[in-house]
Amino acid sequence: MEISELSPEPKQSYPHEALVTWYSNVRKRTTDICRPLKTEDYVVQPAIFVSPAKWHLGHTSWFFEAFILEKSLPNYEAFYPSYAFVFNSYYNAMGSRVLRSDRGNLSRPTTHEVYQYRDHVDRHMKLLLEAVELSEELVDLLTIGLNHEQQHQELMLTDIKYILGSNPLLPAYDETTSLVHQTNFSSGFISIDEGVYAIGASGDGFAYDNEFGAHKVFLHQFEIAKSLVTNADYIEFIEAGGYENSDLWLDEGWSWVQENGYKAPIYWFKEEKNWFHYTLNGYIAVRPDDQLAHISYYEAAAFAEWKGMRLPTEFEWEVASSQLDWGTRWEWTNSAYLPYPGYVRPAGAVGEYNGKFMINQMVLRGASTASAEGHSRHTYRNFFHPDLRWQVTGIRLVKK
Amino acid sequence: MEISELSPEPKQSYPHEALVTWYSNVRKRTTDICRPLKTEDYVVQPAIFVSPAKWHLGHTSWFFEAFILEKSLPNYEAFYPSYAFVFNSYYNAMGSRVLRSDRGNLSRPTTHEVYQYRDHVDRHMKLLLEAVELSEELVDLLTIGLNHEQQHQELMLTDIKYILGSNPLLPAYDETTSLVHQTNFSSGFISIDEGVYAIGASGDGFAYDNEFGAHKVFLHQFEIAKSLVTNADYIEFIEAGGYENSDLWLDEGWSWVQENGYKAPIYWFKEEKNWFHYTLNGYIAVRPDDQLAHISYYEAAAFAEWKGMRLPTEFEWEVASSQLDWGTRWEWTNSAYLPYPGYVRPAGAVGEYNGKFMINQMVLRGASTASAEGHSRHTYRNFFHPDLRWQVTGIRLVKK
Amino acid sequence: MEISELSPEPKQSYPHEALVTWYSNVRKRTTDICRPLKTEDYVVQPAIFVSPAKWHLGHTSWFFEAFILEKSLPNYEAFYPSYAFVFNSYYNAMGSRVLRSDRGNLSRPTTHEVYQYRDHVDRHMKLLLEAVELSEELVDLLTIGLNHEQQHQELMLTDIKYILGSNPLLPAYDETTSLVHQTNFSSGFISIDEGVYAIGASGDGFAYDNEFGAHKVFLHQFEIAKSLVTNADYIEFIEAGGYENSDLWLDEGWSWVQENGYKAPIYWFKEEKNWFHYTLNGYIAVRPDDQLAHISYYEAAAFAEWKGMRLPTEFEWEVASSQLDWGTRWEWTNSAYLPYPGYVRPAGAVGEYNGKFMINQMVLRGASTASAEGHSRHTYRNFFHPDLRWQVTGIRLVKK
Amino acid sequence: MEISELSPEPKQSYPHEALVTWYSNVRKRTTDICRPLKTEDYVVQPAIFVSPAKWHLGHTSWFFEAFILEKSLPNYEAFYPSYAFVFNSYYNAMGSRVLRSDRGNLSRPTTHEVYQYRDHVDRHMKLLLEAVELSEELVDLLTIGLNHEQQHQELMLTDIKYILGSNPLLPAYDETTSLVHQTNFSSGFISIDEGVYAIGASGDGFAYDNEFGAHKVFLHQFEIAKSLVTNADYIEFIEAGGYENSDLWLDEGWSWVQENGYKAPIYWFKEEKNWFHYTLNGYIAVRPDDQLAHISYYEAAAFAEWKGMRLPTEFEWEVASSQLDWGTRWEWTNSAYLPYPGYVRPAGAVGEYNGKFMINQMVLRGASTASAEGHSRHTYRNFFHPDLRWQVTGIRLVKK
Repeated sequence: MEISELSPEPKQSYPHEALVTWYSNVRKRTTDICRPLKTEDYVVQPAIFVSPAKWHLGHTSWFFEAFILEKSLPNYEAFYPSYAFVFNSYYNAMGSRVLRSDRGNLSRPTTHEVYQYRDHVDRHMKLLLEAVELSEELVDLLTIGLNHEQQHQELMLTDIKYILGSNPLLPAYDETTSLVHQTNFSSGFISIDEGVYAIGASGDGFAYDNEFGAHKVFLHQFEIAKSLVTNADYIEFIEAGGYENSDLWLDEGWSWVQENGYKAPIYWFKEEKNWFHYTLNGYIAVRPDDQLAHISYYEAAAFAEWKGMRLPTEFEWEVASSQLDWGTRWEWTNSAYLPYPGYVRPAGAVGEYNGKFMINQMVLRGASTASAEGHSRHTYRNFFHPDLRWQVTGIRLVKK
Repeated sequence: MEISELSPEPKQSYPHEALVTWYSNVRKRTTDICRPLKTEDYVVQPAIFVSPAKWHLGHTSWFFEAFILEKSLPNYEAFYPSYAFVFNSYYNAMGSRVLRSDRGNLSRPTTHEVYQYRDHVDRHMKLLLEAVELSEELVDLLTIGLNHEQQHQELMLTDIKYILGSNPLLPAYDETTSLVHQTNFSSGFISIDEGVYAIGASGDGFAYDNEFGAHKVFLHQFEIAKSLVTNADYIEFIEAGGYENSDLWLDEGWSWVQENGYKAPIYWFKEEKNWFHYTLNGYIAVRPDDQLAHISYYEAAAFAEWKGMRLPTEFEWEVASSQLDWGTRWEWTNSAYLPYPGYVRPAGAVGEYNGKFMINQMVLRGASTASAEGHSRHTYRNFFHPDLRWQVTGIRLVKK
Repeated sequence: MEISELSPEPKQSYPHEALVTWYSNVRKRTTDICRPLKTEDYVVQPAIFVSPAKWHLGHTSWFFEAFILEKSLPNYEAFYPSYAFVFNSYYNAMGSRVLRSDRGNLSRPTTHEVYQYRDHVDRHMKLLLEAVELSEELVDLLTIGLNHEQQHQELMLTDIKYILGSNPLLPAYDETTSLVHQTNFSSGFISIDEGVYAIGASGDGFAYDNEFGAHKVFLHQFEIAKSLVTNADYIEFIEAGGYENSDLWLDEGWSWVQENGYKAPIYWFKEEKNWFHYTLNGYIAVRPDDQLAHISYYEAAAFAEWKGMRLPTEFEWEVASSQLDWGTRWEWTNSAYLPYPGYVRPAGAVGEYNGKFMINQMVLRGASTASAEGHSRHTYRNFFHPDLRWQVTGIRLVKK
Repeated sequence: MEISELSPEPKQSYPHEALVTWYSNVRKRTTDICRPLKTEDYVVQPAIFVSPAKWHLGHTSWFFEAFILEKSLPNYEAFYPSYAFVFNSYYNAMGSRVLRSDRGNLSRPTTHEVYQYRDHVDRHMKLLLEAVELSEELVDLLTIGLNHEQQHQELMLTDIKYILGSNPLLPAYDETTSLVHQTNFSSGFISIDEGVYAIGASGDGFAYDNEFGAHKVFLHQFEIAKSLVTNADYIEFIEAGGYENSDLWLDEGWSWVQENGYKAPIYWFKEEKNWFHYTLNGYIAVRPDDQLAHISYYEAAAFAEWKGMRLPTEFEWEVASSQLDWGTRWEWTNSAYLPYPGYVRPAGAVGEYNGKFMINQMVLRGASTASAEGHSRHTYRNFFHPDLRWQVTGIRLVKK
């Protein structure tokens, strides 16, 4: 997910100190995530949708440099002008850039140099944040920059998992971070009545532009599971021939299964009769009661079909969410990622765009074990193409 | 569009004669469409989304053979058993089939043999339709088969246009069939009030499975154009640099423009300062007042962005449709093709599936100059991938 | 093989009548080859290396129009100027052209129109040939044009076999033309002494530019088989696991086998324990004593390796040829297609080029059952990429 | 070039000490080459034909482990058994392996771990080499292993150049290593008489299997340049429109130019009217008198065509070589890489194979500035596909 965003309305004024602390804490978490990495782990890009940790570190710093420091800090000098070319992600308005597929081909700047770049940006950001007058616009940009960085923290964790998990040596990341060992607390279904409901962000607290355009939807009555599908549930689907039965799959999903020869979720391996998977703790047995993770929309939809149920729409999810156990898996919905009524693309490069990704992607709701604090509100809209499964995604069912 | 379908509820009983007439009329229109073709025009497949006319002729006949005659006509013998392999489109449940990309690689069966096959099927279908007892299920299958054939008639016309229009000699199809010479009758916008509205097919008359699951939606107030965008409007967009301005495009749309080097709609050519296009009448000047045709969703969305407006959702369109001029262009909506609440995939091969195409496609509403009679109801849902533009597609705008 | 050519030295003067007869005979054989075809068979192109018969008919006529009539027949008017674009094969100097991969996407000109085009060219060629003065250069161009057409006759036969042989209905071409029913007359090996030998065309009679640069080579003593490998020999190789043993294959050959899943020569099918193949007479049992046909260089090289032998070089073949039985299979040699010493690319478009294909192709010597009369001289150099196998190719072995 | 090899005849016995010194010197040069690298430079693979330095370090060590230590050192334990999977290059007989295209996707083993692996192998190799009895076979394998490592040293240098030279920051490798600053010492042409000449390795000293099969060839008289083409010569070709003139190019070369948009050799950039290029010393002006480097066979052949000359055959080169200045550029010949008469593929995995690469590659003769000592003999046959240009390749002309 590459997202930029504009909060639509004025923020309350922050004391300088609080801003500096907030900034420092968010920035620190990024480097904390990298602590267990070897230098080489910062560099590689085994799939187009993965970015090297080195790139994430540079890109999140470039964001503050390009959108804040160069415009608002007098006499600021870019750490190294060519970095704008290296670390721009997709902002056409900000000039040309390294092809996404080439991010893993760059040995330079080195990890050390990227850390120096971060330090340079951090020192100047603190100078700026301690200055007397912080305009509302600047606080807005800061807010966006920090939320942006937190989104990249989530991507870093899942990208690192992909990098280590596709290595034939299957090395562990560390012994304590487990993205997948969560079990359900609840069971059963809850019923939501037919009616007109309010959807979207109300303006209290930060939200991305794609959450605004608060509006009303009509929902028919529905029953939604309180808990998520477990590994045991999904193993049943596999053992029942789920990956061999074209009837269960969307047509493009079936092609995806056949062309890739998939037989199970990513990271899963069958040894004799038992299932194992790669986790950030290393290669271990699949725990039946854990919530299923790392499945594509195609797999989620096929599983639901097999169960005779369906996925919720994003609106059903949002309305029901206050009564659900959620927050550990991004949950695929059966809603395409499209603008809310009244959505307007923000102007300028920083707003380039949630809007421009609103095609061929499906909405996920909830939050995952990899999500940063504050990224788990009821209105949050995540989105990915239906074939992707390296995020910590799961399945919640609705009765037909 | 490859669609099979099940009408969800019993049809009234038809007299034999009416059925025979209906069957004959629909079947005849298919061969009428082919009349201007040379034998060679029946054979080629210049793009994966195009099928040769020969294949359409065979496939629509195979449908009646496979789903009706082989099951319901005692002692029926297939005209040539291998044809099932050649003319199956995508029904996994009906056995293996020629790859879609290979349809244009087949010189046999010849066009003449395919016509013989049609005659064989028609003779036996008439035998069946004149038999004493026609079960409700059979009438349902017949209804589907004839609607299916009418959908293929529309595809045949647009496929033929693509076949002739991508030939360097740009040969005309005939002198009377014009798919694109329609002008608007109305102008201005109409306003629809906020409220809860009924959507979907009610069960009177035939409808596809994807129209059922009649349900309610809440709509905010909106203003929708009575008329469609014209060639003159679109030329303005082109001349204003629409195809060079990344800000206007969805990200995947921009890649599509750049990779293909597109500068105008399909079939359009600029000679000095004037625009020409290929039509079924031949190569002629673009008429400014005609309704724009043959654009992709990407182009429709970029144009709307440039105008500071947006496309309607399929629900807005359906609610407003009784007050709009429509029926000459399929109109791109800003709704993804997804199931209605309560949608259930029909069982069995004949119901393979609207449902399985419900991903990565956008809904079109209305009907086009290529549509068969009876394919222009308010609830009809057409759908295509956002990059396709060989259908007679157009743009209707909604104010932001 | 797309070859143009210049005979390097003056031809003796021909009487007009002889030229007209020669021209007529060659042109007639082309249309004779097409006689068993249905109109649809003229159109399709199931592989990039295949051209539709319609294209061959047009291209060979265009050759006479573009290189002779337009330059030498006063007031000649092109039959239809756009045909130059449609029927140019690869002559950069003659203007732009239809992409090779699009030849099968063209329904127009129709077969009938192409025959009219041939008639138009033939009428004017006869006018020209009956005129008083025929320059030496013109006779040279005529000679080239007719040899060129004969090469296309061979390609037409093998392209037609590919078109019908890849159709799921496996239709026969006719009952009398068999390209593959030849048995060996000889057996054993002959020994050729070490020495310096003359290679290449001497200038008596027509030869392509790539045969000139007559020169000397030194050969070490070698022993070469008088006969060709048979189907029975090759079945032994298959049954011994030849297609599963990477040791026998060139590295790129092994990739080719694995990526395509090949297990046998093209057109071969195993039913239970017996081998069948598609021939121009239809689908029949493989005859063990027939000479093997339709194998790639990769397969030829792997078979030779398995036998503990090798393929001859083109020089060994040429020196030994007077003592060999040959003329039914093009025989893969272990020589790359490269210029002879002293080779000079002919100037002008007609000489575009044997020379430009002299990379990544292997030389074949001999002639095949599909070759036209006069295309089986000792110095003739045919050439194809090592993965191609739709020609009537075979294997002759040399002892290591 | 990935080559394994067998010297065809017994080596004289070496004293232990000499072997240890030889081994140590060769192994040390590999790590010397890596000294200027940052850790990140060891990891990336920006093109399929490039391998990461880390992989070269591991692969050359694995060679000694797999072919010598595991077979000949009693009780040897592999450093880490999975490394066999990671560091096998293409030896089918040695088990499965990481896809070549995935070498740059592996962050583990780390560079440090690979150096530990090298140390482990070196310690045990020294143990072995100091043991009492060294069989002739073992000395042969050692000889191959060291020559193999030297070939990888050359690849490492050119791979590193590619890695740094395709980085947008264009970082220098070091200040002293220049692969391209060589000028010619001679000028003019020498003439070689027609005659029968001996070709190939005689058996004195090490040679690869592909050099054996010493044999005789007949050469016609020819004149060959003593010096190599310079940058100034090649700039003339560029400025004369060499890259825009299809007449000069092989057909596949012309496609290569057009599809890639090439306008100059790799690493070259034009700024206004001046040419610059990336070298291992950094980004500098092209020196006109330096020998041209880094061109593909396609470019070499087009240049020769433009000069009205040709490339030498590998036989001409070998016969003339004692009178030429050579050793700084691998020189493209107009000979395809094919076996010499009498060539036999060595048995077993270590001999997998020069032979199996003998298709679709062209021979280069000479040696380059990147070549290790001892890799510049008159009979040495290097070979690459005609589109590759990251080696230090050059052009020597022969008169037509």
